[in-house]
Amino acid sequence: MKVYLDNHSGTKPDERVIQAMLPYLNEYYGNPQSMHELGAQAKQAIETARKQVADLINANVNEIYFTSCGSESNNLAIKGVALAYKDKKKHIVVSQIEHFSVLYSARRLQQLGFEVTYIPVDKQGFVLLDELEKAIRDDTVLISIQHSNSEIGTIQNIKQVVEICHKKGVLVHTDAVSSCGVVPIDVKELDVDLLSLSASQFYGPKGAAALYVKKGVRVIPLIDGGVQENGIRAGTENVAAIVGMGVAAEIAKKELKENYEKMIKLRNKLIKGIQERIKYVYLNGSIENRLPNNVNFSFEFIEGEGLSLLLNSKGIYVTSGSACASKALKMSHVLTAIGVDPAVGQGTITMTLSKYNTEEEIDYVLKVLPEVVEKLRGISPLYSYFLQTGQRKPAGPGTDYDGHHHE
Amino acid sequence: MKVYLDNHSGTKPDERVIQAMLPYLNEYYGNPQSMHELGAQAKQAIETARKQVADLINANVNEIYFTSCGSESNNLAIKGVALAYKDKKKHIVVSQIEHFSVLYSARRLQQLGFEVTYIPVDKQGFVLLDELEKAIRDDTVLISIQHSNSEIGTIQNIKQVVEICHKKGVLVHTDAVSSCGVVPIDVKELDVDLLSLSASQFYGPKGAAALYVKKGVRVIPLIDGGVQENGIRAGTENVAAIVGMGVAAEIAKKELKENYEKMIKLRNKLIKGIQERIKYVYLNGSIENRLPNNVNFSFEFIEGEGLSLLLNSKGIYVTSGSACASKALKMSHVLTAIGVDPAVGQGTITMTLSKYNTEEEIDYVLKVLPEVVEKLRGISPLYSYFLQTGQRKPAGPGTDYDGHHHE
Repeated sequence: MKVYLDNHSGTKPDERVIQAMLPYLNEYYGNPQSMHELGAQAKQAIETARKQVADLINANVNEIYFTSCGSESNNLAIKGVALAYKDKKKHIVVSQIEHFSVLYSARRLQQLGFEVTYIPVDKQGFVLLDELEKAIRDDTVLISIQHSNSEIGTIQNIKQVVEICHKKGVLVHTDAVSSCGVVPIDVKELDVDLLSLSASQFYGPKGAAALYVKKGVRVIPLIDGGVQENGIRAGTENVAAIVGMGVAAEIAKKELKENYEKMIKLRNKLIKGIQERIKYVYLNGSIENRLPNNVNFSFEFIEGEGLSLLLNSKGIYVTSGSACASKALKMSHVLTAIGVDPAVGQGTITMTLSKYNTEEEIDYVLKVLPEVVEKLRGISPLYSYFLQTGQRKPAGPGTDYDGHHHE
Repeated sequence: MKVYLDNHSGTKPDERVIQAMLPYLNEYYGNPQSMHELGAQAKQAIETARKQVADLINANVNEIYFTSCGSESNNLAIKGVALAYKDKKKHIVVSQIEHFSVLYSARRLQQLGFEVTYIPVDKQGFVLLDELEKAIRDDTVLISIQHSNSEIGTIQNIKQVVEICHKKGVLVHTDAVSSCGVVPIDVKELDVDLLSLSASQFYGPKGAAALYVKKGVRVIPLIDGGVQENGIRAGTENVAAIVGMGVAAEIAKKELKENYEKMIKLRNKLIKGIQERIKYVYLNGSIENRLPNNVNFSFEFIEGEGLSLLLNSKGIYVTSGSACASKALKMSHVLTAIGVDPAVGQGTITMTLSKYNTEEEIDYVLKVLPEVVEKLRGISPLYSYFLQTGQRKPAGPGTDYDGHHHE
């Protein structure tokens, strides 16, 4: 059995999405900027998709700008706004648990003379709103707080963030890549100024994403050069992928409730099953305000990397560390920010469900996972020390942060 | 009959390319950064594509960075290099006939405190090399000169550009989007430091392009945030499109000579046929150093927009003005730079061939085009004035740049 539980890293495109894309690869291959018939067909197709994406988040159609990926949307939002208002304001605020595309955009702006404040979060991953309020200065141009966290699943109260910021005249961007298509998003209700979303999170193709920009908000392009996307994003439009994103958005909106209920049932079964079957496990993130498809556990005495590799060998695909930079880190910046002990946090995996997962698959995971954890603990010196002494081995000389003995 | 002669705006993807992409949409949908089997398959696929693209231009595999479009590659090259060396050097040089993604990247850098010199070209569109040499300063970091022009087809002598620049320690980028896959490109022979190419120009999909960066050259990312593309371009890789680009590159390399010979024969037939059949036409660009698929004519006394619309109604798809911003301009910056009289230049269309065009299609164009030009001249006040007086009507009060009488 193959069980794909790495949906934050990308979902399997819906068959209806692929079918909608195909004609734009082999038949309607015109450039949307060309004035002939083939160009007009392509132009029409991307404008239809723009409407479908706008409808998913209750935006106006002229507030949707297509990009190539969620990271591009986040970069465009943060650098674009900062550069547009740079003559007046020089300070931006982000949370400590943002996606790297937000954090590194902020860091890049620091190199260009901006100042950045990083807001801490509590143990469940909620941004500390009083810290946020205190961080706002007269020259603060933008605050970027994610809608939900792809790793621990915590959903922020963005409406409250917006209220705090707008009272002080500060623009708000939210990275909703993990949320859009998974939970209901209404940009008018949230009242955010910019919002990022990505097709690959809701059964659309890779290569298509979007940035919502509220009418009147100025953004400097990352990619200069053409009239495309109302001058905000040059480059020939990836027509097939955009068409796919549009269809995916329409399906996601229509089937959101059904998928939500299906996933949250399986998610809760998985969480409960793990807690019942395996000792010394810790669920990270909020349980009440959590993505319906996110499960994130730290398994004490073992390493997430080894756990994910063994699960892989059993056909179960999960991610250790952070979903988008899993090769780069031992313990993610998110787990660090919520105060997880590194000795425990290193044994963390993220499992994210999709509408395709079944109850049989969850049963299979609940059968295999305890065996695999047992096996890894059986060869763990930390676990054997714990069994012998009843004590956690303190980190210190002789033990590095990976829990390995130095030989 | 439908005749697609707008291939600079995008080619029809090869059926073999589409077939290669499909499994990466519906089966191998993993994220290349994921450590499980589905991730590893995707990673393997993009590394295969990287080798195929490297081989097309004789680069080393680790010198190829994938992007989402040619405009992104050009932005990344110019802004990326300028920002990487900004503490030491503040001046860049581009030609006047570059693609807008180059020109507007330069303009954006001016807003950030850089200085830019724009080098003129001669009447055939060749960059004036003595002007280039004179423009180089001690603080010049980068020169960007296109390999060929998408509108008038002129191919520059990049090797000579590189020699001039390297003698003075200046890096060279070339926008080879219109050239790669169409004419042989060898980055080692050219000795350029950066080179842009795009899949959509050689029967690959939209949504995949690349930047060649010579080992040792530093580039600051446009899209920050991840370990992808060796840290130079964050964001989940568009696996299917990249796979398509790789296969397209392999096919382009293998079939380059055959396609070149086929297209140049049709191109010459089209040029000769137009010159024989239609009076008062002017071929723009070089005839000796010209892309094998480019035909660009100014038709006196009429407008390119009207001409392209009428051709469209006969199933012949061409572009008026510049290929990538055809809705934005009356007479393109390229025609202006080569000194075309606006009264003539407004009647310009670009026809670009592909490997799919046939002799029958060219015969059809040579039948339809003279009729359409005749028809438009029949309703042209400028032409009727010319027939009556034997004189070109001078632009002045009563006639605007479009050649229209003010009513």
